[in-house]
Amino acid sequence: MKVIRDSIHKDIYLEDYELEVIDSSEIQRLRNIKQTGLTYLVYPSANHTRFEHSLGTMFISSKIAEKINADKKLARISALLHDIGHPPFSHTLEIFGYDHEYFGKRKIKKMDLVNFSSSEVIKTLNKKNLEGKIISGDVDADRMDYLLRDSYHTGTAYGMIDLPRILRGLTTFKSFNKVKIGVLKKGIQAIESLLVARHQMYSAVYMHPTVRIADTMMKRAVMKEILEKNLNVEDLSLMDDISLVSFLRMSENYLMEKIDRRDLYKNLITYGYSDLTPVERWIFANLDENQVLQLEEKFYNHFGCDVFLDICSIPKMEEHNVYIVSKEEIRRLDEVSPIARSLKMAEIQLWNIALYAPRENIKHLKENDDVKKKIHKILKEIDFEIKSKLVDILREYKSIIGKGKFLEIARERGISPKEFYEELHKLIFCGLIKERFNGRKYIYSLSNSINSHYL
Amino acid sequence: MKVIRDSIHKDIYLEDYELEVIDSSEIQRLRNIKQTGLTYLVYPSANHTRFEHSLGTMFISSKIAEKINADKKLARISALLHDIGHPPFSHTLEIFGYDHEYFGKRKIKKMDLVNFSSSEVIKTLNKKNLEGKIISGDVDADRMDYLLRDSYHTGTAYGMIDLPRILRGLTTFKSFNKVKIGVLKKGIQAIESLLVARHQMYSAVYMHPTVRIADTMMKRAVMKEILEKNLNVEDLSLMDDISLVSFLRMSENYLMEKIDRRDLYKNLITYGYSDLTPVERWIFANLDENQVLQLEEKFYNHFGCDVFLDICSIPKMEEHNVYIVSKEEIRRLDEVSPIARSLKMAEIQLWNIALYAPRENIKHLKENDDVKKKIHKILKEIDFEIKSKLVDILREYKSIIGKGKFLEIARERGISPKEFYEELHKLIFCGLIKERFNGRKYIYSLSNSINSHYL
Amino acid sequence: MKVIRDSIHKDIYLEDYELEVIDSSEIQRLRNIKQTGLTYLVYPSANHTRFEHSLGTMFISSKIAEKINADKKLARISALLHDIGHPPFSHTLEIFGYDHEYFGKRKIKKMDLVNFSSSEVIKTLNKKNLEGKIISGDVDADRMDYLLRDSYHTGTAYGMIDLPRILRGLTTFKSFNKVKIGVLKKGIQAIESLLVARHQMYSAVYMHPTVRIADTMMKRAVMKEILEKNLNVEDLSLMDDISLVSFLRMSENYLMEKIDRRDLYKNLITYGYSDLTPVERWIFANLDENQVLQLEEKFYNHFGCDVFLDICSIPKMEEHNVYIVSKEEIRRLDEVSPIARSLKMAEIQLWNIALYAPRENIKHLKENDDVKKKIHKILKEIDFEIKSKLVDILREYKSIIGKGKFLEIARERGISPKEFYEELHKLIFCGLIKERFNGRKYIYSLSNSINSHYL
Amino acid sequence: MKVIRDSIHKDIYLEDYELEVIDSSEIQRLRNIKQTGLTYLVYPSANHTRFEHSLGTMFISSKIAEKINADKKLARISALLHDIGHPPFSHTLEIFGYDHEYFGKRKIKKMDLVNFSSSEVIKTLNKKNLEGKIISGDVDADRMDYLLRDSYHTGTAYGMIDLPRILRGLTTFKSFNKVKIGVLKKGIQAIESLLVARHQMYSAVYMHPTVRIADTMMKRAVMKEILEKNLNVEDLSLMDDISLVSFLRMSENYLMEKIDRRDLYKNLITYGYSDLTPVERWIFANLDENQVLQLEEKFYNHFGCDVFLDICSIPKMEEHNVYIVSKEEIRRLDEVSPIARSLKMAEIQLWNIALYAPRENIKHLKENDDVKKKIHKILKEIDFEIKSKLVDILREYKSIIGKGKFLEIARERGISPKEFYEELHKLIFCGLIKERFNGRKYIYSLSNSINSHYL
Repeated sequence: MKVIRDSIHKDIYLEDYELEVIDSSEIQRLRNIKQTGLTYLVYPSANHTRFEHSLGTMFISSKIAEKINADKKLARISALLHDIGHPPFSHTLEIFGYDHEYFGKRKIKKMDLVNFSSSEVIKTLNKKNLEGKIISGDVDADRMDYLLRDSYHTGTAYGMIDLPRILRGLTTFKSFNKVKIGVLKKGIQAIESLLVARHQMYSAVYMHPTVRIADTMMKRAVMKEILEKNLNVEDLSLMDDISLVSFLRMSENYLMEKIDRRDLYKNLITYGYSDLTPVERWIFANLDENQVLQLEEKFYNHFGCDVFLDICSIPKMEEHNVYIVSKEEIRRLDEVSPIARSLKMAEIQLWNIALYAPRENIKHLKENDDVKKKIHKILKEIDFEIKSKLVDILREYKSIIGKGKFLEIARERGISPKEFYEELHKLIFCGLIKERFNGRKYIYSLSNSINSHYL
Repeated sequence: MKVIRDSIHKDIYLEDYELEVIDSSEIQRLRNIKQTGLTYLVYPSANHTRFEHSLGTMFISSKIAEKINADKKLARISALLHDIGHPPFSHTLEIFGYDHEYFGKRKIKKMDLVNFSSSEVIKTLNKKNLEGKIISGDVDADRMDYLLRDSYHTGTAYGMIDLPRILRGLTTFKSFNKVKIGVLKKGIQAIESLLVARHQMYSAVYMHPTVRIADTMMKRAVMKEILEKNLNVEDLSLMDDISLVSFLRMSENYLMEKIDRRDLYKNLITYGYSDLTPVERWIFANLDENQVLQLEEKFYNHFGCDVFLDICSIPKMEEHNVYIVSKEEIRRLDEVSPIARSLKMAEIQLWNIALYAPRENIKHLKENDDVKKKIHKILKEIDFEIKSKLVDILREYKSIIGKGKFLEIARERGISPKEFYEELHKLIFCGLIKERFNGRKYIYSLSNSINSHYL
Repeated sequence: MKVIRDSIHKDIYLEDYELEVIDSSEIQRLRNIKQTGLTYLVYPSANHTRFEHSLGTMFISSKIAEKINADKKLARISALLHDIGHPPFSHTLEIFGYDHEYFGKRKIKKMDLVNFSSSEVIKTLNKKNLEGKIISGDVDADRMDYLLRDSYHTGTAYGMIDLPRILRGLTTFKSFNKVKIGVLKKGIQAIESLLVARHQMYSAVYMHPTVRIADTMMKRAVMKEILEKNLNVEDLSLMDDISLVSFLRMSENYLMEKIDRRDLYKNLITYGYSDLTPVERWIFANLDENQVLQLEEKFYNHFGCDVFLDICSIPKMEEHNVYIVSKEEIRRLDEVSPIARSLKMAEIQLWNIALYAPRENIKHLKENDDVKKKIHKILKEIDFEIKSKLVDILREYKSIIGKGKFLEIARERGISPKEFYEELHKLIFCGLIKERFNGRKYIYSLSNSINSHYL
Repeated sequence: MKVIRDSIHKDIYLEDYELEVIDSSEIQRLRNIKQTGLTYLVYPSANHTRFEHSLGTMFISSKIAEKINADKKLARISALLHDIGHPPFSHTLEIFGYDHEYFGKRKIKKMDLVNFSSSEVIKTLNKKNLEGKIISGDVDADRMDYLLRDSYHTGTAYGMIDLPRILRGLTTFKSFNKVKIGVLKKGIQAIESLLVARHQMYSAVYMHPTVRIADTMMKRAVMKEILEKNLNVEDLSLMDDISLVSFLRMSENYLMEKIDRRDLYKNLITYGYSDLTPVERWIFANLDENQVLQLEEKFYNHFGCDVFLDICSIPKMEEHNVYIVSKEEIRRLDEVSPIARSLKMAEIQLWNIALYAPRENIKHLKENDDVKKKIHKILKEIDFEIKSKLVDILREYKSIIGKGKFLEIARERGISPKEFYEELHKLIFCGLIKERFNGRKYIYSLSNSINSHYL
């Protein structure tokens, strides 16, 4: 047994074999990967790392496993490993299809996990068992740890959730023969406070306009190197913040140089959720990085300076799916909690797309009215059709009653459940498909605005 | 006015010109210099930087200046700049005579400080005025910030001083026509708690055995590069943690590789303060780095593996000089506070010298009795005379009454006051000179043990 | 200047004349009045008092006044006095029309406020000036202090608002020639978090089912004494928790005896907001205490034991009226914040009426189906007409566009603005009047359900 | 299982039978007994009670029992009951021989403890087993809880000990066939910090001059009622703060009236430890309450107003006896820790005797030089011999080597071990007996100053 002193959970006790795993280069690498990417340029104390977060996730997973009688040891070891696939600066550099879960599993396969086989841990991280849902699910250890930790290290009060009270409310239930994690009725308030914390951290930290600018600059800096074949995407899975920054410095990457001097780009225009039609949202949400770079090239050619386009990714809002369990029934949080519903609305309002330009050019660009027009023009020219099989289905059916029914039709047309859920979520988010709840079932139909453009 | 959110002081307000100074590359560089060196290898959350600490020192300096009616703006700007001369990993790499104050001032000379001249700031950092003493003195903003900050980010409770209460007790007084910072009688307890906090942080964090091992490994890694002319000492003043680590990795420095894998050396032997005679302490305290390296070479030749020698530097214990001010009299904290006195004793007990060897060799070395004997033998062979002009003086005078008197004699023999105070402190610390207080004056004499060796 | 150490704000500095006011018996009395009534029976650490809260409100008022350039001294002295009219156990005992603001002002009139006249302080507490709005308004010092304090002393994390960030967002603006306090756009999030905190404290603490039972028992205990002429309502303004409890013990009040033994009543039935029709809500919301006591007498006669009826008061939700100020426009928080809107909904859902019976009788009552039927019957027999002049107006007009228009009509029929606003809020809350917003104006009409009963 | 939310330990889980015991009137009574007596008159937030503290002590006892494999359930139930014998205002009213341990046990005898017998709990509280030492001993749950709690509720930072780190260092060892609680070497620092916390809380809170004045006034108020036979000592064991205060108010006790108005007495003279000779300390330390009252009567007759004499009780400093356990040896903390030793010195320095007079008389008394002289005179006239059997023994033996030897001689003269240890501690504290440690044994001799008086 060893003890590590953590800023959040204080004493974290470790078994000897866990220590062996921690001492692997895969986990030690996380010491040099900042948990919140370039957030430290806005919140100077946000220098905490994926390493601490991994220990913390292990700690909370352990507590949850105890509460719901899951396999504590398996939950712990898997939690410890859940983030080893991250690129430098964590989520910031998930570019060109980089999937941290894929790289994580690839690494685990090759590791010696002492008392565990790689395959059980991978199975867990794939959420094939209860332990997996403890680490990452609707109410999970990962999220609880990062809210507490990011809030502590940024100095904001927002992420300060009431961990013991959340734990008190957790339970398990059976659904379609699978054991799932749910929340007792008396735990609703604690879960609501988790949602509130997450929402507030999103708006104060994760989506902070300047953090997003810095992140975009770093993304572009690295994309440039990849496109110029100085680096390939896979390399990122082995680098840490140090080797990446030092690589960029040596390449004399001009964006890195600006980041080092904190000479950050400025906001030129922001199009909020309600500034765009559903079709426009859908277009932007589906642009891939190469298309974005093409647009940016057009901007460059017109304005003679960088104009970067930053499109928020669409939030998953998994916590809204939490099941509230009582003797009588099992219901989704969203159905029983007006706060949960409104946070969903608020979350949607945070989504936007923004354009950034260098500090030295911004004044000139902002004062020139033609710039805005030109940008609109370029954005409107995006040649992109609303290709969506689900929209096609609804064009045909007009309205479908029941999510199960909808899935059934989709599967007949060769759409996998995973694709179905993701695309449906995205279409609803963008406002192309309307989802209503008649008290018993969800009803789906096309939005009226499906053909309108108003950028 | 801008606000920066800090983990410790929450909202730190900044004037526009201060922001300009902060945006200089000299201060931005501090974002990539860890406040507590390699401490993060023991306390994984200790990733905070000199940048945050500089803002925090500015914040507390500002509060103190307000309390004692000093020039707040000057105190603030100087505090902001007080640490820009640090090498990567802060104190860890003050090697081969690297003096962070010297490099700091050299940088300040070349900077544009907007509303201030470089010379006033340098004068302040040289403690030529009250503002300088606010930043660094007997009770100072620097120390208060680092105690709070290091304690918050390591997750230990020890540094949690009561800032408002300390501020409440501060005052100024005149002594030899100079205005100094003192503490009111009612503030003694708050100052004692500052001392206690400092002592506890020393023993739990700054002097943590494993932290010292990691620090020593990093020191040796860099010393090796300097000796091989791959790097020179001055370079350190421009590098940050990133460029240094990446340099060491590219040089395939074997110690860096071990640090990256957290494959830390282990303790072989520790000689505590009471394990050594005063003469032996004096010898070790005066060894320079080249002499240490020579010893380590001898060890290497004998044992076929690294054996590093780590000698604690002698603590300054400035807080003990704090003046306690009442209507009737002005006295040193040490005279009125038994806690202060005992902490001095405790501090002395923390001093030691230690030998470290690689993990893979340690078992073999420890089990072999001859190793210890051989080490003793090598250490005893150190060819080093007790050259000390102050000892010579006392050999002549037997006993001197009054520190002023002693200084007078020393000056006649060409010793500067600065040298005098430093050497005297060191000799007393080692136990070669005895200092007694007869109620009015200090009395100095040689210790009896001056000729004994018992290593 | 003196300093008082407070659990929340740490050092609170006081002017000498403020200390004199604090030393008055009117303020010292607050030391023995618990801030949160009988909450300590559920949260055992909730023993904090109106005295500390008054100091804290003074402290925050001071900070707000500084931020918005109001008269700091006036704000401070008024804040200090804002709660001196409270009866023992604070809000718990505002019975039989006890109005703590009335008694507060009556006391202030007779006090010597050293540097201030009673009339300026009363004017302030009547919110006739900016300072008054600092203490009690849409975003006010009173609420910020009690959230922080109640949360600290109950040990819940919910009230932990980010005070510096809220302060940062405060501003003033002019409306109809009056200076009001508003919130800058960038401060919306901080205000939302205040609302969230308040909501969570309501549901976790202030409306905790057991706290409400204890409060109801104490209310009935004192009402009994008043009805039996052992006490009169005015006496409460001079008593503290000690004298009241000791009076009740000496009267051998059976409810006090139960409270002392924590032998609390249990919940028999709860009718939630959605269990009742708008008409029924309106009836219960308008029952006065004598009518409630008559119902309880009927229950007693039927069931042979106490059955207490506890009707939530209708929440004011003033924070929702906060004005958000930007260069372009001034809007109500509710209009711009989906979170604010949903919290309003959530707040409404918390409203209910509940029936309690002694622990020893509860099992029997619950198991007997006739009991519930009998209670329904008694409640349905309440002979109460929906007397509401505003409903009458709407019966006539069908629909009225614009709140101003509605007020105008109401005034013509002799309704004062104060009555109008209160009654309208209550009618909307109960669901008897519908309020829609067409983007420019509010439109009022009668709810369809105005005649239905479904208890 | 039930959960209670505590301000310090957050969720405290309780077994059903524990809840039953908590619901007894003996424990519920503690809800109305303030933990720190009249401290709330200085630290207004210090309204926490013995009830919360009892729960907290139970919580920590539970953690310690787990760590050292003691009987957790027995430790918990005993901890819960350890304070039920306290009079109103806790230690403040331990007057005329009131012994809270005696009354506690008397109550326990009559209680129904569900799963436990009264006798096992009493045995535990008598420290006849390991569980008893967990609750009250050298490092105990009682002290840890009150330091954390009193510090949290007063708002001072001083008591904030690092609970998990202290727990980590606890162990057990055998001595004379008894299992005792000790501290591992690596836990020394954590224990030192406990000592430091305790010392700082003593000087900032428990021995705060104004707190002591308020306590003395309350003591005298109650003593007066007892002497006038309106109350007897035993009554205190059944009263709570409410019934006592209300009794004093109804008796129109003038001191109670002053306390209610916070019209506190002021300090007239303080004689510090070093202002008195050993003999004088001994005299004051041995005065009983009746003798003190006689002196106060003399003062009254001379000065025409109350002059109260407050003599600190002699601190037990049990933590200094903590055993530090390593493989090689078992030593007392005091021997290995210079901080512990110096805190002992500092503790001694806090001891004093003080005289207080009414606010309205103080100025007159202070300005009149004769007053001080007269007081000296009265105090010097105290007719009190140094009756001490241990002094007699040392007069005979001159010097005794070994505490065991000394005890042996004492027992021969009919002194019980308990008496021996108490008297010896007191004599050493006063400076009448000198204790030296020669490295192996303690050596006892009489102090030279045994006959001198210098008040």
